[in-house]
Amino acid sequence: MTDKLSRQFAFLSEADKLKSVLRGTTLCDGSRRENSGEHSWHIALYAMVLAEHAERPVNIDRVIKMLLLHDLVEIDAGDNPIHGTHDPAEMELIERAAADRIFGLLPAEQCRTFRALWDEFEAAETDDAIFAKSIDRVQPVVANLETGGGTWPEYNVTAEQLETRVGVKVRRGAPALWGHLKARIDMWFEAR
Amino acid sequence: MTDKLSRQFAFLSEADKLKSVLRGTTLCDGSRRENSGEHSWHIALYAMVLAEHAERPVNIDRVIKMLLLHDLVEIDAGDNPIHGTHDPAEMELIERAAADRIFGLLPAEQCRTFRALWDEFEAAETDDAIFAKSIDRVQPVVANLETGGGTWPEYNVTAEQLETRVGVKVRRGAPALWGHLKARIDMWFEAR
Repeated sequence: MTDKLSRQFAFLSEADKLKSVLRGTTLCDGSRRENSGEHSWHIALYAMVLAEHAERPVNIDRVIKMLLLHDLVEIDAGDNPIHGTHDPAEMELIERAAADRIFGLLPAEQCRTFRALWDEFEAAETDDAIFAKSIDRVQPVVANLETGGGTWPEYNVTAEQLETRVGVKVRRGAPALWGHLKARIDMWFEAR
Repeated sequence: MTDKLSRQFAFLSEADKLKSVLRGTTLCDGSRRENSGEHSWHIALYAMVLAEHAERPVNIDRVIKMLLLHDLVEIDAGDNPIHGTHDPAEMELIERAAADRIFGLLPAEQCRTFRALWDEFEAAETDDAIFAKSIDRVQPVVANLETGGGTWPEYNVTAEQLETRVGVKVRRGAPALWGHLKARIDMWFEAR
């Protein structure tokens, strides 16, 4: 039991480092970059609040757990802004190695359970994972809208790019949410 | 539906402010104060990892939801360090008013559901709430241990105070966790 607890606490202390990984978006008041720890909390809350808007029935408890775990690999791999220029294939390799290392800190059985949830999220094939991905894409859009476009100008984001990189994924799991945000997004681009 | 979504997004944007509420403890690397948003993520992860150590059977999905919500009142009430000198009765009034306002941003039915979870956590009478409270107390202890005592010296924390203000609550919901930490805590006080 002591060894088990030691492994669990080692994992939890390692997870603390996610609070120092900075993301491409800012807080809603624009005061600073958001970190991936607080982002993970916020999207878990997003999922909890917006569950009823999932396109297909989801197990919201599994979705929340996926979202709590999904960014841990960034401790090694860093955050890769959706409007950035990283190579997806290379990133996948780096993130898989990170998952091996970080979930590997846990006791064996728990490592397998957590890793399976992370793999499911990454694959984006189950209804739970598809909705989780939608929610993960929605929150930065809101943060950017709340800050007058936020970091969109910095990344030279176009309306078309937002539609193909973000809209498509949000609509897949939660079309009502994209419909609601699209009106605000269109207004922003028209005003520029 | 539009009105409902507007209320839900208004609540979620208000929740963003929790990322600017600073707590009494630092990150595990001591680099800065932890904020209540990232703390909420971390303890939800703590609960997910440490569920098996609950003293009595718990519904971990409800525990996680409680923990995701439990600090939102700090947007209005601020964080009150456990080793600080605030008046508990006065704080309770302030936090209740905060809960009225913040959960009141949600659609009526969701407001009632979320508020009931928060009330349950605060009352600390059900098995789920007792375990959630234990987890909420465990994480700052670990952060302080990881940083060589962290903010304990600043608050003049004694071993006895740690036992009565923290240990009692952790042991109530998860005695195995306190047993594990107590050895590390004793070593720290002996070394001073």
